[in-house]
Amino acid sequence: MYPATAIIIVLQCMLTKAQNKYIRSLTQQKFRYENKVFIVEGEKMAKEWLASNAHIEYVVVTEPWASANTALLKKQGNAKVCVATDIEMAQITTLSTPGEVLLVVAMPGATPPPVTQSWYLLLDRIQDPGNMGTIIRIADWFGISHLVCSPGCVDVYNPKVVQSAMGGHLRVNIYEEDLPDFIARLTVPVFAATLDGANLYSVPRLGAGALIIGNESKGIAQNIVSLATQKVTIPAFGGAESLNAGVATGILCAYLVAG
Amino acid sequence: MYPATAIIIVLQCMLTKAQNKYIRSLTQQKFRYENKVFIVEGEKMAKEWLASNAHIEYVVVTEPWASANTALLKKQGNAKVCVATDIEMAQITTLSTPGEVLLVVAMPGATPPPVTQSWYLLLDRIQDPGNMGTIIRIADWFGISHLVCSPGCVDVYNPKVVQSAMGGHLRVNIYEEDLPDFIARLTVPVFAATLDGANLYSVPRLGAGALIIGNESKGIAQNIVSLATQKVTIPAFGGAESLNAGVATGILCAYLVAG
Repeated sequence: MYPATAIIIVLQCMLTKAQNKYIRSLTQQKFRYENKVFIVEGEKMAKEWLASNAHIEYVVVTEPWASANTALLKKQGNAKVCVATDIEMAQITTLSTPGEVLLVVAMPGATPPPVTQSWYLLLDRIQDPGNMGTIIRIADWFGISHLVCSPGCVDVYNPKVVQSAMGGHLRVNIYEEDLPDFIARLTVPVFAATLDGANLYSVPRLGAGALIIGNESKGIAQNIVSLATQKVTIPAFGGAESLNAGVATGILCAYLVAG
Repeated sequence: MYPATAIIIVLQCMLTKAQNKYIRSLTQQKFRYENKVFIVEGEKMAKEWLASNAHIEYVVVTEPWASANTALLKKQGNAKVCVATDIEMAQITTLSTPGEVLLVVAMPGATPPPVTQSWYLLLDRIQDPGNMGTIIRIADWFGISHLVCSPGCVDVYNPKVVQSAMGGHLRVNIYEEDLPDFIARLTVPVFAATLDGANLYSVPRLGAGALIIGNESKGIAQNIVSLATQKVTIPAFGGAESLNAGVATGILCAYLVAG
């Protein structure tokens, strides 16, 4: 008789050297887009993805994690489940402390956001992966279904973006398009976050609109600001010159987006 | 005749091996507190500190930067100005891309925040350096002069905290104390950011108060929540389970803090 854990191992494969190399290549944007996949890590996030209807290519797990999560792993019909040693997990992880589970997930097809009477977030050249992930998490919190990134934004499937979006990729439709082209199709008011706009506290909350957030140091490009219905500014009472792009997005959404 | 730049170099020293080693040691909290100093980097931040009345121990610069900023360097009466090569800058930097100027700055003496009718931010075990820096920057933006950190918060002089606070350390008084002890002295209403509190949108803006922000995964300790006048929550309309601690702090301050 084998102990239960031994039987589980028989049903799974050990991570091969080729798979190890493939997964490590996915830290590079080029290989993510060649293979149309990205990495999801951390137990909480991995469980959220495993419970979703996302297409998962690989589930890489340590043997103890596999033993503790047999029911969840049995449900992954199409995914290849691979068992890795702690050393291998340390080789393939994108985290500073490797976890016990790593997923390779297929990118969802990017769908052009429909022209609706709801809210949109438009990002002009957001560069910092932490900011991008935080903004996706904010969109998810406020129920903003569509995020449009200009060319020149950081890749939304960068592991740090995925990590800080905390599952937002599962619920927010993320699309890349030149912002002037996208704005031309919109039928809702467009707000531009600037340092010289109307006092945010005087702008009413709305059921539909679009909010443009600009690059961390350069702000929104002038030709895009000029397409906005209104410029808005968060009033400052202290000595700081600006707010972090993610924090500013959160404050603007909390004031502008009504359900 | 010497060219002008050569004269400048004569007035300054080359970075010694001992100074190089000393500065590198300051990435460790232990050595920062032994020497009561911390590192400030990046041209914009360095210029803000050089223009302040902070006590600066070392100004480490590349030769081209020194030549371009002679007037600013001449004003640094007490600081030792050291010229470093690009290789030395790469050795001592805490940034992923070394800059052309790095400061070693004396920690300001921590002053117990006075009991006033103004706003306070209280942080319970904030762990992430980026969040801590972002929160200091938010306090600076909203003119909140006093930030009280519980024991167990990340060190506010960690280089990543200093980097993301964007000069907030110059204007925000940061103090460490057990939060129950500090709250016991307060005479303003105390708000606790939780997931089960009153709808933030129903709470009026106030000229004075204290806002408690909790640990990124555990929230605020129960014994501290119980000391609050009111629990407040940012209403969610989407699928995200929570917001980033920095973003939540920004939204709460934007709603609660009136000038």
